Amino acid sequence: MTGTPEKPDGRQKAEGPPAAGGTPPAPRRRGRPSRTAAGSGPGARERILTAARAEFAEHGYDGASIRGMAKNAGVDPALVHHYFGPKEKIFAAAVETAFAPALSVADLVIDAGPEGAGERMARFVLGVWEDPVTREPLLAILRSAVANETAAGVFRDLVSSRLMIRLAAELDGPDARLRSELAASHLVGVAMLRHVIKLEPLASADVEQVVAMVGPAVQRYLTGA
Amino acid sequence: MTGTPEKPDGRQKAEGPPAAGGTPPAPRRRGRPSRTAAGSGPGARERILTAARAEFAEHGYDGASIRGMAKNAGVDPALVHHYFGPKEKIFAAAVETAFAPALSVADLVIDAGPEGAGERMARFVLGVWEDPVTREPLLAILRSAVANETAAGVFRDLVSSRLMIRLAAELDGPDARLRSELAASHLVGVAMLRHVIKLEPLASADVEQVVAMVGPAVQRYLTGA
Repeated sequence: MTGTPEKPDGRQKAEGPPAAGGTPPAPRRRGRPSRTAAGSGPGARERILTAARAEFAEHGYDGASIRGMAKNAGVDPALVHHYFGPKEKIFAAAVETAFAPALSVADLVIDAGPEGAGERMARFVLGVWEDPVTREPLLAILRSAVANETAAGVFRDLVSSRLMIRLAAELDGPDARLRSELAASHLVGVAMLRHVIKLEPLASADVEQVVAMVGPAVQRYLTGA
Repeated sequence: MTGTPEKPDGRQKAEGPPAAGGTPPAPRRRGRPSRTAAGSGPGARERILTAARAEFAEHGYDGASIRGMAKNAGVDPALVHHYFGPKEKIFAAAVETAFAPALSVADLVIDAGPEGAGERMARFVLGVWEDPVTREPLLAILRSAVANETAAGVFRDLVSSRLMIRLAAELDGPDARLRSELAASHLVGVAMLRHVIKLEPLASADVEQVVAMVGPAVQRYLTGA
């Protein structure tokens, strides 16, 4: 493959991932490889993440390969490793991206005051599951987490640190962490039965009817009311 | 392999599954193969089911093979097919066995009267998840159902017909099916976060504390109280 007319040695080198000695030219930009590397550049990280999510969704955590992600993202496998490290870290980044829409839940739910917080949380979380664009990444991650202990651990750490601790910090009264998790458990369960198992009539029920029924249960965990 | 000294032709034949023309000797016992088939007999069905559950647990629905189940059960693959039919039906039988402990939930919860029904249902369902002997089959099935649409459909049909319809029939008021499913969704979600994702402090919380906190939410769905 090396030495094909289209790829002179110089370009070969630039196309490869940063080697051991190939420190990125601007060390202050942590973790960014040379802009001259083919497939890299501003969009490469996002492209790899999208490809990684698709790979996890299709093959599960165990079956997902860095080679497959790289191929779908149009980059060298070593560039994937350069950006993210081993598979576990790629999965963590994928979980983080998939959860990005949910990270604002603590502020969104609590900032408007305790009244109706349960219904707002239910509407927000079930809304994220309602839209295929935000649902599919969550489903991919859920599938991996249910099937693989390592993936479950990555998922657990991120949900704890990014969602549960923040939500619990906003709650008054004892057992705030446990109450946050029980509120979340209910919404996870509704999403499971509605979107994964597709149990009827829950799967086809109007989302606002579900929100109205589930809201008070979530409210009880958030505010004890 | 055929014609080895240990396996004369006669025994070879008896070991095989009932062939097209090999109708069971007692046709009134539907679906039962000849008792003379090696590996069959009273315990064969249960042995195959146990092996099938282990196969689904280890390889998921897509990766599970009838050959693998047969090998672990010590029977001919065709005997597996004879008892259960295609993989989908084997999965259905495995789901049914795994859910056997839960099938009494409707009677158990409601027969003692509406008061405290939510707490009793939470204690019963979470108790099934608490014991590794009853948890592992459920986990295997959940993993398959989350990963595969066919498995999700089998799971859905059984949960609907065996659990939800029966529970809803015991409830007064409107939307009984939807309320049954929302009650179940909460307990499914608690089991997911406690036993699969292992989110702390929920994973280590005393089960009776969880029952006491979740019970009122379930009660609201069951009786509106």
